[in-house]
Amino acid sequence: MVLDVPRGFKFVGVHCGIKKCKKDLAIAYSQTGCTAAGVFTTNVVKAAPVLYDMQLLEKNSHNIRALVINSGNANACTGEQGMRNTIRMAEKVAQQLNLPQNSVLVSSTGVIGVQLPIEKVENGIEKAVGLLTDDPIQFAEAITTTDTSIKLSYKEVELSGKSVKILGIAKGSGMIHPNLATMLSFIFTDAKISQQTLKKLLKDSVEKSYNMIDVDGDTSTNDTVIVIANGLAGNEQLVEDTEEYEKFRDAFDEVNIELAKKIVEDGEGATKLIQIEVNNAPSPESARRIARSVISSNLVKTAIYGEDANWGRIIAAAGYSGMDFDVRKMTLQLSDGQETITVFESGHGTDFDEEVARQILSSKRVLLTIDMNQGTSQAVAWGCDLTEKYVQINGRYRT
Amino acid sequence: MVLDVPRGFKFVGVHCGIKKCKKDLAIAYSQTGCTAAGVFTTNVVKAAPVLYDMQLLEKNSHNIRALVINSGNANACTGEQGMRNTIRMAEKVAQQLNLPQNSVLVSSTGVIGVQLPIEKVENGIEKAVGLLTDDPIQFAEAITTTDTSIKLSYKEVELSGKSVKILGIAKGSGMIHPNLATMLSFIFTDAKISQQTLKKLLKDSVEKSYNMIDVDGDTSTNDTVIVIANGLAGNEQLVEDTEEYEKFRDAFDEVNIELAKKIVEDGEGATKLIQIEVNNAPSPESARRIARSVISSNLVKTAIYGEDANWGRIIAAAGYSGMDFDVRKMTLQLSDGQETITVFESGHGTDFDEEVARQILSSKRVLLTIDMNQGTSQAVAWGCDLTEKYVQINGRYRT
Repeated sequence: MVLDVPRGFKFVGVHCGIKKCKKDLAIAYSQTGCTAAGVFTTNVVKAAPVLYDMQLLEKNSHNIRALVINSGNANACTGEQGMRNTIRMAEKVAQQLNLPQNSVLVSSTGVIGVQLPIEKVENGIEKAVGLLTDDPIQFAEAITTTDTSIKLSYKEVELSGKSVKILGIAKGSGMIHPNLATMLSFIFTDAKISQQTLKKLLKDSVEKSYNMIDVDGDTSTNDTVIVIANGLAGNEQLVEDTEEYEKFRDAFDEVNIELAKKIVEDGEGATKLIQIEVNNAPSPESARRIARSVISSNLVKTAIYGEDANWGRIIAAAGYSGMDFDVRKMTLQLSDGQETITVFESGHGTDFDEEVARQILSSKRVLLTIDMNQGTSQAVAWGCDLTEKYVQINGRYRT
Repeated sequence: MVLDVPRGFKFVGVHCGIKKCKKDLAIAYSQTGCTAAGVFTTNVVKAAPVLYDMQLLEKNSHNIRALVINSGNANACTGEQGMRNTIRMAEKVAQQLNLPQNSVLVSSTGVIGVQLPIEKVENGIEKAVGLLTDDPIQFAEAITTTDTSIKLSYKEVELSGKSVKILGIAKGSGMIHPNLATMLSFIFTDAKISQQTLKKLLKDSVEKSYNMIDVDGDTSTNDTVIVIANGLAGNEQLVEDTEEYEKFRDAFDEVNIELAKKIVEDGEGATKLIQIEVNNAPSPESARRIARSVISSNLVKTAIYGEDANWGRIIAAAGYSGMDFDVRKMTLQLSDGQETITVFESGHGTDFDEEVARQILSSKRVLLTIDMNQGTSQAVAWGCDLTEKYVQINGRYRT
């Protein structure tokens, strides 16, 4: 393994038999108790492991020792039996690793509405615990469903003279076979940080990363972001509003934003990454909502897929964001990172060169920059294009 | 013309040259002054004619005499020149028909960001006014963009011994080439009704009809619903909370719901009409929002296109509606109007017959019924499926 993973963490990923052949069971373990924080789906219909983790973290967010994740089955809409199976997963891991049961968090991702083959999962856990290593790759593989690539991000920062490491491992969202579709992201760090600070850090970071991506607008029953910090780096405990904290926060944000972008790039049927930057908006909320409204528009997604500089759709999507603004002050630019053209200015379209526009849109990464010119707030969102392949994959997935 | 149109209205539709060959200019005229009410797009970016009509109706909603509509050009994102052109359209109609200028409403639908060829439109108006007749078919044709059919709905009710007529004419929404995409709906009636009552009637009716349809979630810069009532039926003026009023309201709602359904059925690339009924919800708002959330889900749309009884997507979409509810009380049924099966009950899936489900979903009209079992409120929404053709049409529309 080329990564120098955060101190004291071990990982494993195995095949336990939920899926036919691929790895479907992952465990992460910390030598010592971790402070932990989680952000979970806002969907009212929450999978059993989501409800379980939310309850557990309310009672114990100071001594988390392990995560266990299965893929291939979401354990959602599975009633009381589903909750019993989640508890059995936590119990089995606790028993095998000699940990308190309430120190084990559980996640699931996969098909909705089918009961877990719990004996297979339990046998898998028995097998897996003997295989824990420093290498997170098998873990990253085992949490994927139909992702076309594993998703890791790694950063290292020096804090109070100590090297502090942050490792993020995620799996893709909705588009990659939405029935097996959930965004899971796990962040491991050896930083020393209080639970309260960690909780706020995670909440703010999620707002800037996973909450600013859109694949198809559907929110899963299982979406989960968890961070655990074991303090083994030996840094002085991080305190908000200090330089050290900000250094850590920036690295933490970078990890989450990198994972979020990897998720949209791997969107189902996607051929392009779309980035939208909204500048000089009247308020942070309006910047965010305008960016999200544009990135979520099917019409914008299909236009960019078709490499069509159809700026009217972008302006119209900003317009139905629910935020009030003066369109006569807006400017819209398209860019591929090298060439940039202005297509809309002062309330109407410019006389831009269609050929240059087409060339920009033929890029794999398309940047849209909206200057609202009516404030100082900024937001960035990421998404992918909408293709025929998305419809094909999703139209006939389950049967 | 088979329809016996409301008394005192005349219609015309001609080709003025915005489009290459098809009719693109429509005028409706009333012998006498009409009370009028309008509901317009919530998009912050409003086309010039929308802003014009909103202002006009604030000052004069008692003496409307004509509507003029062009298709092929939305007159949106066209700055001050766009507003001058809207005013010129109203002026020309007023002058030709010898009406006060502030008695003429204007609508446009078509491409965003291009200036109207206003001389062609003015010449078209001169030509059109001489061709006004009882027949609304040419009018219905001239307001369409890429609709595959014209959309009319007609109802007649007896009120205080008089026959009162309601004629609705609409054009399709977003999906039918979204760049030429707007929902326009015009309701003509010879009922006698006060402006205040008409305004409330329209607002409530729009909530039950056009606001409960979803094609692709994008809200146009031009969406408009206008009703004008000239009172020539001779009924006693309609007063709220009377039996006569309710009779009229029901017919009025039926006209709007029928037009709304015709719009989604003609959705771009659509192959199926999807109807969602939410029953026994905790509140009217939750019923509406759950129905709208499900009908707007790309994953639900593609599953139904693929004739896949993927109920997890429907439950998950209800879950992210933003409304709180207890999933363990919910029941979900699929129906084609003849056969009905229950696929979800008491928080988990049933052991339904996949073959029967597939047969139901192969219907052109698919009905989803969600019984929340936790209140008394009800809502119905309509949408269409999402197909590869949608992506194809929208990906390469403009260029």
